[in-house]
Amino acid sequence: QILLNKRSVRERAPPLLTDLYQFTMAYAYWRAGRHQEPAVFELFFRDNPFSGGFSVFAGLTDCLLFLRNFHFTDEDVEYLRSVLPSNTDPDFFTFLKGLDCSAVSISAVAEGTVVFARVPLLEVSGPLAVVQLLETSLLCLVNYASLVCTNAARFRIAAGPRRRLLEMGLRRAQGPDGGLTASRYTYIGGFDLTSNALAGRLFGIPVAGTMAHSYVTSFSSLEEVWPQTLVPSEGDDPIDFLSLVKGWLGRVCQLLGARPQQVREGELAALLSYAIAYPNNFLPVIDSYNVSCSGVLCFCAVGLALCELQYQPLGVRLDSGDLCKQSVEVRCVFRECSKHFSVPKFESLLIVGTNSVSEQSLVELNKRDNEIDVVGVGTHLVTCTSQPSLGCVYKLWVLAVLNCASTFSLYPRLAAFMVLRRAAERTSPFSHPQMDLICLSEEPAPKVGVPLNYYPLGLNKAVQSVTPSQVTSLRLDVFSHGEITLPLSTAPESRVHAQTSLQAMYPHHKKLQEPENYTVAISERIHLLVSNIRKGNSKGSHFLLSN
Amino acid sequence: QILLNKRSVRERAPPLLTDLYQFTMAYAYWRAGRHQEPAVFELFFRDNPFSGGFSVFAGLTDCLLFLRNFHFTDEDVEYLRSVLPSNTDPDFFTFLKGLDCSAVSISAVAEGTVVFARVPLLEVSGPLAVVQLLETSLLCLVNYASLVCTNAARFRIAAGPRRRLLEMGLRRAQGPDGGLTASRYTYIGGFDLTSNALAGRLFGIPVAGTMAHSYVTSFSSLEEVWPQTLVPSEGDDPIDFLSLVKGWLGRVCQLLGARPQQVREGELAALLSYAIAYPNNFLPVIDSYNVSCSGVLCFCAVGLALCELQYQPLGVRLDSGDLCKQSVEVRCVFRECSKHFSVPKFESLLIVGTNSVSEQSLVELNKRDNEIDVVGVGTHLVTCTSQPSLGCVYKLWVLAVLNCASTFSLYPRLAAFMVLRRAAERTSPFSHPQMDLICLSEEPAPKVGVPLNYYPLGLNKAVQSVTPSQVTSLRLDVFSHGEITLPLSTAPESRVHAQTSLQAMYPHHKKLQEPENYTVAISERIHLLVSNIRKGNSKGSHFLLSN
Repeated sequence: QILLNKRSVRERAPPLLTDLYQFTMAYAYWRAGRHQEPAVFELFFRDNPFSGGFSVFAGLTDCLLFLRNFHFTDEDVEYLRSVLPSNTDPDFFTFLKGLDCSAVSISAVAEGTVVFARVPLLEVSGPLAVVQLLETSLLCLVNYASLVCTNAARFRIAAGPRRRLLEMGLRRAQGPDGGLTASRYTYIGGFDLTSNALAGRLFGIPVAGTMAHSYVTSFSSLEEVWPQTLVPSEGDDPIDFLSLVKGWLGRVCQLLGARPQQVREGELAALLSYAIAYPNNFLPVIDSYNVSCSGVLCFCAVGLALCELQYQPLGVRLDSGDLCKQSVEVRCVFRECSKHFSVPKFESLLIVGTNSVSEQSLVELNKRDNEIDVVGVGTHLVTCTSQPSLGCVYKLWVLAVLNCASTFSLYPRLAAFMVLRRAAERTSPFSHPQMDLICLSEEPAPKVGVPLNYYPLGLNKAVQSVTPSQVTSLRLDVFSHGEITLPLSTAPESRVHAQTSLQAMYPHHKKLQEPENYTVAISERIHLLVSNIRKGNSKGSHFLLSN
Repeated sequence: QILLNKRSVRERAPPLLTDLYQFTMAYAYWRAGRHQEPAVFELFFRDNPFSGGFSVFAGLTDCLLFLRNFHFTDEDVEYLRSVLPSNTDPDFFTFLKGLDCSAVSISAVAEGTVVFARVPLLEVSGPLAVVQLLETSLLCLVNYASLVCTNAARFRIAAGPRRRLLEMGLRRAQGPDGGLTASRYTYIGGFDLTSNALAGRLFGIPVAGTMAHSYVTSFSSLEEVWPQTLVPSEGDDPIDFLSLVKGWLGRVCQLLGARPQQVREGELAALLSYAIAYPNNFLPVIDSYNVSCSGVLCFCAVGLALCELQYQPLGVRLDSGDLCKQSVEVRCVFRECSKHFSVPKFESLLIVGTNSVSEQSLVELNKRDNEIDVVGVGTHLVTCTSQPSLGCVYKLWVLAVLNCASTFSLYPRLAAFMVLRRAAERTSPFSHPQMDLICLSEEPAPKVGVPLNYYPLGLNKAVQSVTPSQVTSLRLDVFSHGEITLPLSTAPESRVHAQTSLQAMYPHHKKLQEPENYTVAISERIHLLVSNIRKGNSKGSHFLLSN
């Protein structure tokens, strides 16, 4: 939490980072004396991304920090004065200078919760003008965070629970902050590690990385290796490590029927030099030239020399070509060395694969023999190639979700929604959520054991009934009177929640291709309200709601 | 320039925003005493994005600000100490604390220049360790900036020179900074306006925007309109604007054969209210309910009432449905009103279209009858849907571009490249660039009128010859001794350069689909160097280069 707060909100999303029309609308409301009218907006999306069956909600922490710090600087206001029409009443700028979120309340789904299309994620209520001004910034903070978090969750599913996942997309992200956002939210979605050092510092995400090809190709001969000695792990006197490695290279080549001459001298020098610098963290990239003719031989020679000095090499990275095939070949070499030289740990060294991995290629990889322990993903993860945006909207939910336009002489602006889940009646050992139910906030919550009528959204189905065995409110009050009203989740905490939330889902909703739809339903009261809006029978629905 | 500097670099890309392996490699270099070795890296990409024939280079200003402020804080260094292996020599952290870019030199193509695959965009030279540490940050700052700038240039081409383009992608960008980056670089690429207020303030980009559907639907009756009066442009006494508009609504409905009852009262109220707030900036969205049954009638009634009071309405925005068809219908209504009510300017009101426009839909739009003057683009522009990343790399160019690995006993690490363009020999009134030529920095520049041999890249063609009629160096020295050595371009300046650079290109290279390849060639000396590397004849090429 301390780490999060260091990254102040003014950096991330100052309130001027919004569409100009929010100001022109705010002015028109203000001019008409409507700016203090109570308003309620819901933030939600209409379709799960990636043709999937679920999404993971993320970005809440950023939204809350943004709201807490929402305040226009004098410079902001002067800029607005310069771009808004010249006949704008000067008092409006005074109004803007004094504006903050002290009259705004937010309830939201917890960060990391599995969510579905048309379920309100964030409900923003407060004076019309300020609530309108928040729109673009909140959408900006939730859209990409939730999209990339969902993408990461899908990679996690594709990878299976055992394989470790490393995010390494910084260089392909939408600039520095896009890269940081990606690191944070892919971790919450289920990645284990990031290459992004700043994300490690700010968010407490474990970081990883050893070397690039440029390091390997920057060496050309063994003469460049300096120092050439290494002190054994349990010793005091430096050993001539270069000679030791040369000896091991001969033995490895003999074992594998290779010629020492085929080894690239520069590659051997690079690996040697790195091992001397970091004898306990030896995980080089081995495909700078040719894995089987040079890379794996260099690695084994250096790695076995390290073992002889009681160090434990970590493994290798493959960054090109057919990762599955190469990983099997490399594992085979590790096993031979392990057996022949009696170094048991050598057969279980890590093999890291990092060659433009996509969700699809990860799925394919799982279908083939492979020995890859860690997968690094960059471009396809952070840019969300197959769908690079999530279409969250910020609207009056009743009207927007049902595609009906209406006047506001009814109550829907003031309606809030609770989203409830019914656990399966006959499941063990876990109960899986079966439905998200959207109600009016003034309705009593569904009760365990009490039959409940509901209308599934998106289907013109008649009323259905269910007797809940478990009911959970998905909404939390997170912001009121200008203050954040719950402890901010750290990235590790949100990650735990996301993974628990994902694990609770039925597998058929989590299928990456053609998942079964999860039910999102509305209560009878909302159904009646909507029917009345559609009929234009405002009096009837008003009567209904005021009951 | 002042505006740019306000946005400090520490916000945008602190030096810790890089991949962890840059630090492990830097340590290994440092440990081996190689960190001060001179090194030269080139930043370039291998393929134009979007299957196109060109790209626009962008991100240079951000790179320069990053380099000037490159310095690790004590907090950064302590974090690195906590994540690097425990046996890292403590002196390395002292080294990091004192590190800056005072020994780094950069030459680069000017921001906004049209560039091509494999042409070095940025050359970074300096001590090996620091130049290595810069890799990820520079890639991050150039990749998305150039990608989105190129995307914008393609939208500009698709839109034609007349139509104005408005960027409005903030809510779909990769977070706040992604949104700012998009606004800046789409403007440079050829957009005219942004909706992003902060981008307007920071970069001096013209901003635009009036109202969203939520503004329109927040009104339900004319009773909500307050005040209901408006002072005429050239007068002192307030006029009952509500009655005036009602009168105009009757006349407009009569002219168009519509019934006043079909108009949504809320929509009329919203437009009325907005016009009273901003009588000189009246450009409402008119598709909240139904354009022809209500929206355009409301607009004409309010707009004509404004005209009667000597105000000039600006136009309308269409945000759904078939933009072409609706724009033609709306223009037709404007013309009828203009003629019937003798209001000449009414026929040339702006029509703004903003319905999930893509490059393809913009191309299609141009093929159909339409009356759209301004096109707003969001998601497809900022996320670069059809290719959401540019694969810039940071490598030793000679080796990387030719896909050959080699030891470095040659000179290529020290080679720099000049990129030159030969103008067409027989063109008028403009001379179009015909070729980018990559040379060694030590070579004499090609001369006008002197025959020149070159080898086109990507083709196994024999040597070709040309006599340049014009030669321009594309490379500028932009950074040395820790200082930026040229005035930073503002966004408007870079935009002018980009548009000039684009206009100079032959149209067949700018085709959006199946463009003709622009020639990128290497000099004879580079060709020889490469041949020698391929033959492994290092002595020969060393001799060659030292001549």
